[in-house]
Parts: sequence; structure tokens; C-alpha cells
Amino acid sequence: MDTDDIIVTAHALADASRGAVLPHFRKDGLSADNKETCGFDPVTEADRAAERAMREILGKRRPDDGILGEEYGATSGRSGLTWVLDPIDGTRGFLSGTPTWGVLIAVSQPEGPIYGLIDQPYIAERFEGGFGRASMRGPQGEMPLKTRGDRPLAEAILFSTFPDPGTQPEAHAFRAVAKEARLTRYGMDCYAYALIAAGQIDLVIETELQPYDIQAPIAVIEAAGGIVTDWHGYPAHAGGSVVAAASRRQHDEALEILSQVERSKPE
Amino acid sequence: MDTDDIIVTAHALADASRGAVLPHFRKDGLSADNKETCGFDPVTEADRAAERAMREILGKRRPDDGILGEEYGATSGRSGLTWVLDPIDGTRGFLSGTPTWGVLIAVSQPEGPIYGLIDQPYIAERFEGGFGRASMRGPQGEMPLKTRGDRPLAEAILFSTFPDPGTQPEAHAFRAVAKEARLTRYGMDCYAYALIAAGQIDLVIETELQPYDIQAPIAVIEAAGGIVTDWHGYPAHAGGSVVAAASRRQHDEALEILSQVERSKPE
Repeated sequence: MDTDDIIVTAHALADASRGAVLPHFRKDGLSADNKETCGFDPVTEADRAAERAMREILGKRRPDDGILGEEYGATSGRSGLTWVLDPIDGTRGFLSGTPTWGVLIAVSQPEGPIYGLIDQPYIAERFEGGFGRASMRGPQGEMPLKTRGDRPLAEAILFSTFPDPGTQPEAHAFRAVAKEARLTRYGMDCYAYALIAAGQIDLVIETELQPYDIQAPIAVIEAAGGIVTDWHGYPAHAGGSVVAAASRRQHDEALEILSQVERSKPE
Repeated sequence: MDTDDIIVTAHALADASRGAVLPHFRKDGLSADNKETCGFDPVTEADRAAERAMREILGKRRPDDGILGEEYGATSGRSGLTWVLDPIDGTRGFLSGTPTWGVLIAVSQPEGPIYGLIDQPYIAERFEGGFGRASMRGPQGEMPLKTRGDRPLAEAILFSTFPDPGTQPEAHAFRAVAKEARLTRYGMDCYAYALIAAGQIDLVIETELQPYDIQAPIAVIEAAGGIVTDWHGYPAHAGGSVVAAASRRQHDEALEILSQVERSKPE
């Protein structure tokens, strides 16, 4: 596997996405189509333009690899590698003007992601993990990524995008963890996963994720020393309900509460 | 009143705060003293260093003005002007590594703020309002600030730092507004007020604010065309429960729900 070419290509995709997305950020007249018939899931022109730009580069540089993108679905390949793309993770945050959405790029094998990027174009911050790399580049230069060490849940900082994630039993289980954590914060989308890799927070707990929502975070967090699984400790790269943790202890304590509360409150 | 000198001084304070705060952001070993005996209200070295830096500049440049700061309290003046300073609004967000805390600087008369700055040092973004100014400078250059026009609550984007603000009746009233809004997001601290001024969102509803939490946002939002009052429509510069709105219609609809629900559910 030509890891150097994969890395260079991934950065080229992220650069192209920045160019495609930033002209639309905080601009009027954003076309916020409603992808779902109920609920609010805006898909912007920026989203589509970024994925088109990334697919064009992959078609030229990596024509044998597969692609799974949020906007344009799956394209099969024959190399055994799949590029998993979320051109704007956090479209609601994007439409609100917050700087905590991101472009997610992962390179995946059937057993899970092996490399990932989380890019925040407005801040010009990029978090990278895999192939022996774990680093970020941002306004203060380049820095290594390393998660926090073991600490009890009572001292942990927990993030989730929504205060009531998932089904009622799931939301109940989430709140049971939040009650034990030192601090719970909301609304950061993929940026929260980057903060685990950067050693700033301890846990992210979410539900109803798609593969393209979580594969880049898995690669970046694992490269930085953290753990990402589903709520039962199994691999999370197919999406669903996810626990991302800085270290073993935070992960174990969160998982114990989540599995107990879920069992005791079947729907 | 020498408005030019006030503006130059305010920017000097914000520059000094950036210098004092940024070396502590995302660094290990932050001293997170617990200011409250119960609850989690971390006060960092960064917080104190920034306020000391600002007070030093004011002592030299504006010795006749009063100061009200989060960390070091009130210093009386004799000019009729008070500098109202929150060196880090959103200390929990700061300690979590999120880029949505801010330095708040307002210049106030007894009847309310006449000029304000919201500064986000990590992104290098600064929002300014008052004395005929309403503009922001950030990664994409300088831009005017202008709030959104009238729109119904059903199409509005609402922000609040916490999902259950204030007392039980207050949280109940907040949720009644959130239920009617198109989209509700959490966790942005002062950054949400800047997003109203920048025309990105419609409403921020919060409780238990201090004067230094809200005076700079009032000045910036009003300069950009918005409205900030308490939950009963009265001036909000003394803090408490606050509704900040892009325009009249969003403000009226939110206030109507808040006041009805609060009345119908006395504690």
C-alpha cells in the first residue's frame, strides 16, 4: 500500500473541500434543501460542491479505490480501499455560522478505517491520524495529538451534539452517564472527536451515526491513543451508537452505565 | 466623549487579552480553581492574567473611568464611564478546548452599554459595535455586521448555552420557545451573540447572566440592528434572564411564549 500517496491525496481532498466550502460559509442565500421529509437536515450547495471536488481528485489520483460519500453514495473499487467522505459534518452548525463543523475524510478497509482527517476550514485546523501519524495543524502551528490518560468518569468532560440523543432508552442511558461526569457540553458535531484526540476532553457519546460520520474520528482518535466502539464495545465503523473515549477507564465506566441502563429500560 | 480614544483603548485591551490568554489555551496543567463551593465554575490563570493586563492598560490610558471585571470586581471612576470586562466568557468551553469562548469588553453608562467588543483569540475573530460601528474582522477579512430581518419563530434558529437554563419554570419556558423554533443549538457561550450580530442566527435565550456576560453582546447586537432585553422586555444590562434577537418579530414571539409560560407555572 502506497501510504505516502494516500496521505498526499487525503490532504489534497481536504484542501479542495476548503476551497469549495468556504465561499458558502456565512453567506446569504444558502440553498438549504430538506433531504428528509420530516425534521431538519439541510444539505447545502457547499456540501455537494465539496464532495464533487473530492471525487474528481480521487477519479484522477486513485481510480481503483472505492468511495462512500454522504451526498453521492457508494462507488465500488477494486483495490480493497474505500474513501469515506462527509463533505460537511454538522450541516446544522454550518447553517448557524458556528465554526465547529468539519470535513471528514477516511481511508477504510473492510475491518475499519486505517487513516483519517478532520478538517475545520474556517479556523484552518486539520487533525490527522493513521500510518504512524497523529498530529494537528492550526492557528498555533503544528502539534502532536495525544489523548488524556485514564481518569474516573467523575472527573471526565463529556460531549454530545444533542442533549437527548437517540431513542428514549438511549437518551435515558446517555443522561445517566452525563449525571456522573464532571461536565457535559453540547453542540460540537465532529469537532468534539477532534478534542478527544487533542487531549482536551474525555468522552463523546452519540447515536444514529452513519459510517461517514465516524470513520475519520475513529482513525484520528485511535492514532492519538483513544478508543472508539459502539455502546456494547464492538467496532463502530458501521455507525450507529458510539462511545469515543480518551482512555480505557473513561471508556469502561461509560460503557458499564450505558449497557446497564439500556437493558433495564427496554422500549 | 473621546470616542476615538475609547475605541483604540478597547482594541488594545482585546489585543492584550489575546496575548495573556492564548498561551494557556489547550495547554496542560491549567489551574482550574473552583470558585463556587458547589458546581463547576473553573477560573483559570488565563482568566486572571487577561483581566490584570486589561486593568493595567486602563490604569494608564483611562484612569478616570470605572471598571467592573469578572475576576477583580468593581473599581469606581469619576468620568461616568465604566469598562465592563469578562476576560474569558465560557470558561467551561475554554477548559474543554472549544474555540467558542470569548473576551468581552464593554464601555457603559448608567443606562447601559454604548460600545462593545466580542473577541475570539484562537480564531482571531473580533466583533465590534457602537459609536456608529458594526463590523467584524476574522479569517476571511473585515465584514459589516447586520442582523437578519423579521422572520417567524417557526423559521428561527435559537441558541442557548445549556439545554435546561435557570429555574424549573424558566427551563420549561425556554423549552416552549425551542419547540416552536426551526432549530435549537447549545453550547456556544458568548459566540452565539456574535452570530446574531453576524446575521447567522435569530435568537439567544439565557438565564442567570452577570452584567459582564451581556453588556458587550448588547452593544454589538444593537449596533448590528438587533434587540436585547430581559424576559419581560426591560433593559438587560444588569444581567439575569435575557432574550437577544435579530429583529422585532423573533423578539416579540419569543417574549410572548416566555412570559406566558413563566406566569402559568409559578414555582
